[in-house]
Amino acid sequence: MIRLRDWLRPRRAAALVLAAVIGAWLFAAPLAAADDPLPSWKAGAAKTAITDFVAAVTTSGGADFVPAEERIAVFDNDGTLWVEQPMYTQLAFALDRVKALAPQHPEWNTEQPFKAVLENDHAALAAGGIEAAVKIVMATHAGMTTDAFADLVRGWMETARHPRFGRPYTELVYQPMLELLAYLRANGFKTFIVSGGGIEFMRPWTEDVYGVPPEQVVGSAIKTRFEMRDDAPVLVRLPEVFFVDDKAGKPVGINTHIGRRPIAAFGNSDGDLQMLQWTTAAPGRRFGMIVRHDDAEREYAYDRDSHVGRLDQALDLAPKAGWTVASMKADWAVVFPQK
Amino acid sequence: MIRLRDWLRPRRAAALVLAAVIGAWLFAAPLAAADDPLPSWKAGAAKTAITDFVAAVTTSGGADFVPAEERIAVFDNDGTLWVEQPMYTQLAFALDRVKALAPQHPEWNTEQPFKAVLENDHAALAAGGIEAAVKIVMATHAGMTTDAFADLVRGWMETARHPRFGRPYTELVYQPMLELLAYLRANGFKTFIVSGGGIEFMRPWTEDVYGVPPEQVVGSAIKTRFEMRDDAPVLVRLPEVFFVDDKAGKPVGINTHIGRRPIAAFGNSDGDLQMLQWTTAAPGRRFGMIVRHDDAEREYAYDRDSHVGRLDQALDLAPKAGWTVASMKADWAVVFPQK
Repeated sequence: MIRLRDWLRPRRAAALVLAAVIGAWLFAAPLAAADDPLPSWKAGAAKTAITDFVAAVTTSGGADFVPAEERIAVFDNDGTLWVEQPMYTQLAFALDRVKALAPQHPEWNTEQPFKAVLENDHAALAAGGIEAAVKIVMATHAGMTTDAFADLVRGWMETARHPRFGRPYTELVYQPMLELLAYLRANGFKTFIVSGGGIEFMRPWTEDVYGVPPEQVVGSAIKTRFEMRDDAPVLVRLPEVFFVDDKAGKPVGINTHIGRRPIAAFGNSDGDLQMLQWTTAAPGRRFGMIVRHDDAEREYAYDRDSHVGRLDQALDLAPKAGWTVASMKADWAVVFPQK
Repeated sequence: MIRLRDWLRPRRAAALVLAAVIGAWLFAAPLAAADDPLPSWKAGAAKTAITDFVAAVTTSGGADFVPAEERIAVFDNDGTLWVEQPMYTQLAFALDRVKALAPQHPEWNTEQPFKAVLENDHAALAAGGIEAAVKIVMATHAGMTTDAFADLVRGWMETARHPRFGRPYTELVYQPMLELLAYLRANGFKTFIVSGGGIEFMRPWTEDVYGVPPEQVVGSAIKTRFEMRDDAPVLVRLPEVFFVDDKAGKPVGINTHIGRRPIAAFGNSDGDLQMLQWTTAAPGRRFGMIVRHDDAEREYAYDRDSHVGRLDQALDLAPKAGWTVASMKADWAVVFPQK
């Protein structure tokens, strides 16, 4: 007597194909009616550009097909994935840290730029320029272990609220961009953040908020030093710049961390210009997008004259370079996730 | 008349479960008889330590369970994944490059350390120490674009042969370690290389040879600069050290690139000591392994007195730290992949 299993085993490939066909047929109608993967993007040129690109690079046998392992997409963070007005979130964190640390630093009551921070004197602070910013960053971001710093960031994110929207900063991320990240990943892309912001300021929350794990976050960094403290290894954050991941630094950071050229890049300011060039000025199908902040009602409207997230040169270059400019006002049905 | 599809659709969950059960049953016997995933590891303490660790961290609900996204394993390269004797492969590459470039540098006939290289005077070369090595690296690794350098590495790997084994260097990788990389990945681990060697020297071939993509390679690096050349963006390699990923630099490199602490580390020398400490001196189940080169017949035998891959302090610390020492001679059934 022949057992069913023995009869089936040499036919298992055929049986599995049959099972797959049945499965595909069962699911065909529901999938055809499946929800739009980008519901917060209004129908229009920007949305079509995204879906056309993804279809082109994922169609096996197509002229523009890209193998999954080369489907690297890079996203700026400030102003591209979350709000960067009225100031970079990391600066708000640093100013709050100055206030929290002030009791241990009586000298800050008379010493700039700390005096300006403690007195909320934004004019004096702005007058201090980049030098003041570096002093504030080093005083608030260095001197502790990497673990201790991550705890500080997590704690602050829980309690800090945006001055205009009154919500935690991690809720002021752009719903259309969350959908875009998920859509790209569902199509085999590996999504990376490439930000001018601090790499260790982002990593404690990017996995929860964006679905981007720490090893796919690229950013600016200060130096760290390995030490053994009572048989316990630690990394101590030092008040020295290691790498600035902005402007011409972005392609450098991409090369250091990713080691291959992305095929899609998303930014919103001149800080992303070289990343867009590095990504799109290469053979094969490429995609570049600029998120344009033109929605003062729901978010902010700013470009060429902004002190934060200035968009000037990249906007001029966009048409010739073939970059899609997405209008927050026209292309986004909603801006932030529902509460 | 009720159509089959309409009848089946509400029952599709049940149908799929049934299909899965049938599939599992069909495949059960072949899988139960599946090959050992580590056939080149002889039965013994080292092999058992590996499989016990993997079972512990992957058993859902177990005391030592680790979620897949935190299953990070880091591997040194030279001497851990491939041969590092009689000299680091990258040094062999650099010496060959000096010879290839010599016609364009007549001054090298009289200038050290280049004269020593051209005359194969290894004593004079060794006498030059680290300063000579840096000069040779900068003369051979900088001044071109990242793409041009990757092409040089690929071309050299195709033609260069190891002086003792007569095989391409990319074939002188350790078969037991290839199996270990694949076994860890099959168990949900993300495998990273963390090497003192040049990050851009490894990336052109690690995906083919180890299954490790460029974005999971950490190494030493020189600086690069972004430039537009005739509307084409390039990264130019500069003769300046950016980062040295060795000894206390390895935990720093891990933190920079991965952003979380690994749960398993594999090394072979004192250059891996801090990486082993950073990985294993942490709460939760951890794994550290030292590959011991004690097989002069099939590979090399060296440890405390070696000029390459010295293993001294880490060997002394291994018992107390709980690191497994794998003997190439006793634990490996084969060393290199079959031709």
